Amino acid sequence: MSIKVIIAGPRGKMGSEAVNMVNNEESFELVACLDRKNHGKKVKDIDNLPDLYVPIFEDPEVCFQEVAADVLIDLTAPDAGFLHTKLALQYNIRPVVGTSGFSAEQIKTLSDLSGTNNIGCIIAPNFAVGAVLMMQFAKTAAKYLPDVEIIEKHHDQKLDAPSGSAVKTADMIKETRESKQQGHPDEREIMNGARGAETDGIRIHSVRLPGLVAHQEVIYGGPGQTLTIKHDSYNRQSFMDGVKLSVNEVINLNKLVYGLEKILE
Amino acid sequence: MSIKVIIAGPRGKMGSEAVNMVNNEESFELVACLDRKNHGKKVKDIDNLPDLYVPIFEDPEVCFQEVAADVLIDLTAPDAGFLHTKLALQYNIRPVVGTSGFSAEQIKTLSDLSGTNNIGCIIAPNFAVGAVLMMQFAKTAAKYLPDVEIIEKHHDQKLDAPSGSAVKTADMIKETRESKQQGHPDEREIMNGARGAETDGIRIHSVRLPGLVAHQEVIYGGPGQTLTIKHDSYNRQSFMDGVKLSVNEVINLNKLVYGLEKILE
Amino acid sequence: MSIKVIIAGPRGKMGSEAVNMVNNEESFELVACLDRKNHGKKVKDIDNLPDLYVPIFEDPEVCFQEVAADVLIDLTAPDAGFLHTKLALQYNIRPVVGTSGFSAEQIKTLSDLSGTNNIGCIIAPNFAVGAVLMMQFAKTAAKYLPDVEIIEKHHDQKLDAPSGSAVKTADMIKETRESKQQGHPDEREIMNGARGAETDGIRIHSVRLPGLVAHQEVIYGGPGQTLTIKHDSYNRQSFMDGVKLSVNEVINLNKLVYGLEKILE
Amino acid sequence: MSIKVIIAGPRGKMGSEAVNMVNNEESFELVACLDRKNHGKKVKDIDNLPDLYVPIFEDPEVCFQEVAADVLIDLTAPDAGFLHTKLALQYNIRPVVGTSGFSAEQIKTLSDLSGTNNIGCIIAPNFAVGAVLMMQFAKTAAKYLPDVEIIEKHHDQKLDAPSGSAVKTADMIKETRESKQQGHPDEREIMNGARGAETDGIRIHSVRLPGLVAHQEVIYGGPGQTLTIKHDSYNRQSFMDGVKLSVNEVINLNKLVYGLEKILE
Repeated sequence: MSIKVIIAGPRGKMGSEAVNMVNNEESFELVACLDRKNHGKKVKDIDNLPDLYVPIFEDPEVCFQEVAADVLIDLTAPDAGFLHTKLALQYNIRPVVGTSGFSAEQIKTLSDLSGTNNIGCIIAPNFAVGAVLMMQFAKTAAKYLPDVEIIEKHHDQKLDAPSGSAVKTADMIKETRESKQQGHPDEREIMNGARGAETDGIRIHSVRLPGLVAHQEVIYGGPGQTLTIKHDSYNRQSFMDGVKLSVNEVINLNKLVYGLEKILE
Repeated sequence: MSIKVIIAGPRGKMGSEAVNMVNNEESFELVACLDRKNHGKKVKDIDNLPDLYVPIFEDPEVCFQEVAADVLIDLTAPDAGFLHTKLALQYNIRPVVGTSGFSAEQIKTLSDLSGTNNIGCIIAPNFAVGAVLMMQFAKTAAKYLPDVEIIEKHHDQKLDAPSGSAVKTADMIKETRESKQQGHPDEREIMNGARGAETDGIRIHSVRLPGLVAHQEVIYGGPGQTLTIKHDSYNRQSFMDGVKLSVNEVINLNKLVYGLEKILE
Repeated sequence: MSIKVIIAGPRGKMGSEAVNMVNNEESFELVACLDRKNHGKKVKDIDNLPDLYVPIFEDPEVCFQEVAADVLIDLTAPDAGFLHTKLALQYNIRPVVGTSGFSAEQIKTLSDLSGTNNIGCIIAPNFAVGAVLMMQFAKTAAKYLPDVEIIEKHHDQKLDAPSGSAVKTADMIKETRESKQQGHPDEREIMNGARGAETDGIRIHSVRLPGLVAHQEVIYGGPGQTLTIKHDSYNRQSFMDGVKLSVNEVINLNKLVYGLEKILE
Repeated sequence: MSIKVIIAGPRGKMGSEAVNMVNNEESFELVACLDRKNHGKKVKDIDNLPDLYVPIFEDPEVCFQEVAADVLIDLTAPDAGFLHTKLALQYNIRPVVGTSGFSAEQIKTLSDLSGTNNIGCIIAPNFAVGAVLMMQFAKTAAKYLPDVEIIEKHHDQKLDAPSGSAVKTADMIKETRESKQQGHPDEREIMNGARGAETDGIRIHSVRLPGLVAHQEVIYGGPGQTLTIKHDSYNRQSFMDGVKLSVNEVINLNKLVYGLEKILE
């Protein structure tokens, strides 16, 4: 028996990927979409979406009442996402939500509701399985090989350096290793910035070039050896493996789980 | 208080590295060496070893009786290593042994002795922390990203392809993923061997070039992303981090542990 | 003054990229398109093409007579491409043609015509500047570091292994180095295919994984060192730099040039 | 007939590698060594040198008078090296000299002497063929793919960042590309130094970790593609290919050549 799925935000970049993923997955069935507009239309009526007679709703409550569903995949913005998630939990539909935008208080509310109703819920800031594994491995490796540097490479349209993922990775590494000064105590930059950004002794280097997409490597050094963990993301499809995994896992949960890494253990 | 260490095989390639490592580590103290010859000499009398007045014994029993020690590091051959390890356990000296050459029966004997005497013992086929972490991560990643290929690169004096480590890695991957055919069902080699060696669907590629030392990467692919775990070994020092870690850990054990990965968890 | 460009095949994958490239390049001006259908329409009338009032022609002769142009970019199939190219040369329009499909005889015909009319023409099997540089560098490096292996990595929908580019690269390497046996004379494959495909001593390894796009590295080894030349292609835009360069260069030529490498020297 | 070679500085790190290289090369013959001490001894009398009855001289003039030689390999310091080189040219012995320490005036003097005597001379700051090829390729690639960043990685005992090779590479790139600002015009470092050192728009990143030896990669980006040129140096043997090549080439020269790249063209 297939898992019945509602997708919120089907016209978004992530949402349209999710529509395709659910549509292509034999054990999943797309039963409805939640959209800010297009009420009463079908998925097939929307440009760039597959040719499906699946109904579109604007009001989540109406949707959850009329359609029997197992899982809600929400890939909208935090405000709408919070309302959808709360409501879905009340209707015994398990939410799989992609956002880093919920407040601690919002997460607490959803977690309580999830626990009370004895129903699974997965909220993940990052659904790219490879990226989440990279960070987990990075955290573990730092226990045994504490000298570490991060190189992240992105296209040259990116504004911020370092990337959010690199900062997150460094934060996770700090959880398992002591702060330590790396490099030679007397090392010196003969050109400013050569040694990269520094946080707690960890060095982060940001490369920006046309052509690149989103890449990160974490390099550990010890006497006579180096260990490198590298993630390359080529397009938005990279998130769909994590969404798929979460849909399958949320069915078996009876509480809220925050972070894809929790279901990768 | 420092950990008192006996090293068996101090003139070997690994053994002499171990002598240097123990000598340089503040919390360790080299108290004796076991050697097939040179009985009665000091470490300082041996070419290429540091200038230490540490005694050398040929007979392990005499050594263990006369010298108060906490740990034996054995980096000799399997036959001698087994005798040393058994005897050390009887003298309440914790063995740290680098070998893949013990039989299942020998390991059983040592494990029983270790358990009975309530004393730690670590036997490891590979002490390179980075290599062991690579294999552990490889095994975990295969659960979530089952499409995987291995590229191993070694100097062109190596006879066998693929390397033992690559085969071991593939074996570990098989523990966590189902056998699966990879690549396009209709793919074809227009030149024989292009797609590498195959085991259970996993492809292994062996590069042999002058200049290379010992390198391996495990590459996972999923829609829109790849994850790569890479280990580079540049020289024999790469094993010493694992030996050092084992000396520190064996003190806290009360049974035999086989494989460095067991103490990396 | 801008270079006036006609594009043949504007609805194709490469052709539509070319329309965008020419449209975005200040020094180029798109003056017409050649298409098998849509005669009399404008570029703006075609789905997924930019909003331009540029005329579309089905008959190349009519197009070349009615429109004053400097360069023809032809990204159609070999048969149509040959006719377009020949005709363009007769109308003093310089062709830039992306194909590996012309016969030696066809190239001779075009080369003669180009020479007689004293007008430039560029035909290139590969317009990716980075890929062409990689092959040029690979050829040069083989003179001094003759031990070399090639690893190419592609998505798992690719049927043939090794890739055409890898075979081409090996062929270019053979031009500058003697055939030589690589690896240890007594090396043996304990698993079939581990050492990859072999041509003239050069080893080629083909990796196929979901997520990958099109990647190749050429690795040279010598005592104590390795040199690696790597090209990563992420999408079809990678060809546009070479097309752009060719449009700028063809203006200054007075003969036919085959291969982008000829204008990269 | 073999090439007769004198080596100056046989006890140095580079010099002793050169003694082994010449000794192992069938077409070369070691006929003498120049050393600051050990006059009258043989090579076999010196620790860690091969078992050869080759004479050692302290006075270069005596050496060049008494021994018939084709080539002098000088791997000493700049002061001694200059004297040896000048004298060798006067005795019709072709010098192959590894140094970046000669002044412009010294090079002029040697160049004039070389020209006058119609005899070859090669002076090279870097004999690692792979490193020199990397820089040459880097210079060429910058013409066509002007967006470029350099990542150099060294062991954590290195004091200066970036490495001399990285600065040299950037200087060579500047010869073939216009100064340009890279990255997004509005990019910002949310952590200081993340974007590395900057020279003429080129970014340089320096990684320092235990285990690493000496590695550099130059990465070019263009729409849809990246090109990477990488050199890994694992030990001092990496210089010997260049010394060997220079000994073979200097025989055919009749003037002074500065830089290994000049004979790699």
